[in-house]
Amino acid sequence: MTQSVPLLVVEDEALLLLDVQDGLEGAGYAVLGAASGREALALMDIHLDSIRALVTDIDIGSDSITGWDLAQRAREAKPHLPVIYMTGASADQWTSRGVPHSVLLHKPFASAQLITAVSQLLNSSTDIAAGPGTE
Amino acid sequence: MTQSVPLLVVEDEALLLLDVQDGLEGAGYAVLGAASGREALALMDIHLDSIRALVTDIDIGSDSITGWDLAQRAREAKPHLPVIYMTGASADQWTSRGVPHSVLLHKPFASAQLITAVSQLLNSSTDIAAGPGTE
Amino acid sequence: MTQSVPLLVVEDEALLLLDVQDGLEGAGYAVLGAASGREALALMDIHLDSIRALVTDIDIGSDSITGWDLAQRAREAKPHLPVIYMTGASADQWTSRGVPHSVLLHKPFASAQLITAVSQLLNSSTDIAAGPGTE
Amino acid sequence: MTQSVPLLVVEDEALLLLDVQDGLEGAGYAVLGAASGREALALMDIHLDSIRALVTDIDIGSDSITGWDLAQRAREAKPHLPVIYMTGASADQWTSRGVPHSVLLHKPFASAQLITAVSQLLNSSTDIAAGPGTE
Amino acid sequence: MTQSVPLLVVEDEALLLLDVQDGLEGAGYAVLGAASGREALALMDIHLDSIRALVTDIDIGSDSITGWDLAQRAREAKPHLPVIYMTGASADQWTSRGVPHSVLLHKPFASAQLITAVSQLLNSSTDIAAGPGTE
Amino acid sequence: MTQSVPLLVVEDEALLLLDVQDGLEGAGYAVLGAASGREALALMDIHLDSIRALVTDIDIGSDSITGWDLAQRAREAKPHLPVIYMTGASADQWTSRGVPHSVLLHKPFASAQLITAVSQLLNSSTDIAAGPGTE
Repeated sequence: MTQSVPLLVVEDEALLLLDVQDGLEGAGYAVLGAASGREALALMDIHLDSIRALVTDIDIGSDSITGWDLAQRAREAKPHLPVIYMTGASADQWTSRGVPHSVLLHKPFASAQLITAVSQLLNSSTDIAAGPGTE
Repeated sequence: MTQSVPLLVVEDEALLLLDVQDGLEGAGYAVLGAASGREALALMDIHLDSIRALVTDIDIGSDSITGWDLAQRAREAKPHLPVIYMTGASADQWTSRGVPHSVLLHKPFASAQLITAVSQLLNSSTDIAAGPGTE
Repeated sequence: MTQSVPLLVVEDEALLLLDVQDGLEGAGYAVLGAASGREALALMDIHLDSIRALVTDIDIGSDSITGWDLAQRAREAKPHLPVIYMTGASADQWTSRGVPHSVLLHKPFASAQLITAVSQLLNSSTDIAAGPGTE
Repeated sequence: MTQSVPLLVVEDEALLLLDVQDGLEGAGYAVLGAASGREALALMDIHLDSIRALVTDIDIGSDSITGWDLAQRAREAKPHLPVIYMTGASADQWTSRGVPHSVLLHKPFASAQLITAVSQLLNSSTDIAAGPGTE
Repeated sequence: MTQSVPLLVVEDEALLLLDVQDGLEGAGYAVLGAASGREALALMDIHLDSIRALVTDIDIGSDSITGWDLAQRAREAKPHLPVIYMTGASADQWTSRGVPHSVLLHKPFASAQLITAVSQLLNSSTDIAAGPGTE
Repeated sequence: MTQSVPLLVVEDEALLLLDVQDGLEGAGYAVLGAASGREALALMDIHLDSIRALVTDIDIGSDSITGWDLAQRAREAKPHLPVIYMTGASADQWTSRGVPHSVLLHKPFASAQLITAVSQLLNSSTDIAAGPGTE
């Protein structure tokens, strides 16, 4: 509190991105938004150290980079980063293409579902990171 | 987000129903309210397909239909529907009369307890429904 | 709902205490604030019966009483009380000095993380207390 | 250890009852076997105090008493009793007719699945009962 | 029970495969063993319908097919199949390359760790499959 | 497998220690036994690096060192060490004196309860340790 917790949110639909951003900021998070996979990768290169969770759409516009790819890339660099996927059509692939300890939200979802998912994953990763030498 | 997630809320105390409704709508849910078991059954007949969770009082006025009955009835038709019971006096019966994977909230409870319970159950049922052929 | 759920929050930084208090009250909780371990013990003597959870800083100013001590003391009197620790520097000690079924939040954290942690612990302790003869 | 932990196992197929009994006894449990719902009720009347878990078939022969009924009856008397259902055909009804915090095993299952289910439920109910005044 | 539950176990070290097989068979499982990724894929083509869980090494000899690949392939065909990875050197990659709801066992591990992991995942997937229309 | 996983077991009743040792060794664990708190501390000084879990009685003979003390001491040196307490009389103190993510077993318990508790804690600590830089 008093200082916001930064998240990376990847979503190509501008209105949904704004909506998600509003919900998360009201909950005490600071949102770094990306409208494409390419933009997300660029932001991850610079800011991954300070980003505390990744919230990502699966099919990001006409982009060949999917949310499955972004999550895998982010976890390679930061193995305990909380990951939340948001999707309408690609939910079926989560059990084969998602990463462990992630959450998948079917669109449409309530803002409280996203806030609860992010907060729960952050709280349990805090738990993991409580030992010395972690991360 | 952008579209609300519909819930059925059953509560005979009008003020508490309003209160619960306010809290849930602020969290991104759309509330279908019922003031009696009979009314709840009627709404379930028409809207169960679109309802994403059931939030129900146990002793609903002078009604012979209890929240235990409503939850069982709803689960027969929709086996993975999230269920939240709200009660003052009947909490003792939850371990024998409640359904699996439900949450019981003792009255009085904070609005955040209800929002967290609904959101958590929805997020984990999403998880269950992620495989093809489910529901 | 309609009635607030009382929590004891222990934090010596006045601004952070206000911030936490704001967040929790917006979520339906009533906050009893203490700025030192001594003050927290005094409040526990009088109000422990009605307090539903303890939210505590670890290093409380120049106080010799730590958050670890407060939680242990509170649990001796009320064995299933939900406990949330907030800390910057002392997180490493949680796995050896924390109590079972508690949550540790690293500062800085988002208000939603605290609200989710309190709500989840309350919801699962409700579950425990659902049987007759408990507490 | 050194003393066995008593369980009630209800199953009308004699060979399966023997098989289950063998597996559980090798794991340190003492099995009280019942071949019908009627017999199970009689044993519960006398021994429920010492029984630490209920393992029950759903459709018990031509009996009108089902495993769903036995579990509900047992939980009314002993609210935190671990319950494991074993069934081939009636699994679909678990989410509407089962009790909270129970496990359903599809027949056929490996002996280790039953032993793990019983042990896990016992270990977490121990946790619940760890506070003074419980049960 | 009385009938064994079939698992696919993939491990190129013959002695370890025997060892794992012994442990699992003593627990009531029937083991279909594969010594290479190629062999595993062939067995999956024929037997995936009846296989209830996949237990796989990560670096399977000189094979270009890894355990990560096998698990992803198996989950594409059977989205809720329990997956257990066994590895010495590749554990670091689990959070980025593993599938959701899987377990990773560090070699060396005790036979009870594997049996408990398989049984727990099977018991909770049973839970998921309890609703009509699943799988 | 093929190599045993070493545990430290602390219990002053010689017969129970033997019994526990038998059960754990049959499950693939190697038991380092201690009959007093003093002996346990000496073993921890030398072997803590290789010990994968602590299984401890609470009131260890006439010793002034309790199981609560041993667990806290062990966790200070090895923050994610799985801890299982075994006790008859002191279970009430677990929620105030136990460490997070530990399991308490009430005596008498079945051997499978201990084996399941140890295995589950080891499997989930493996999960925590899967990221680089942990421990």
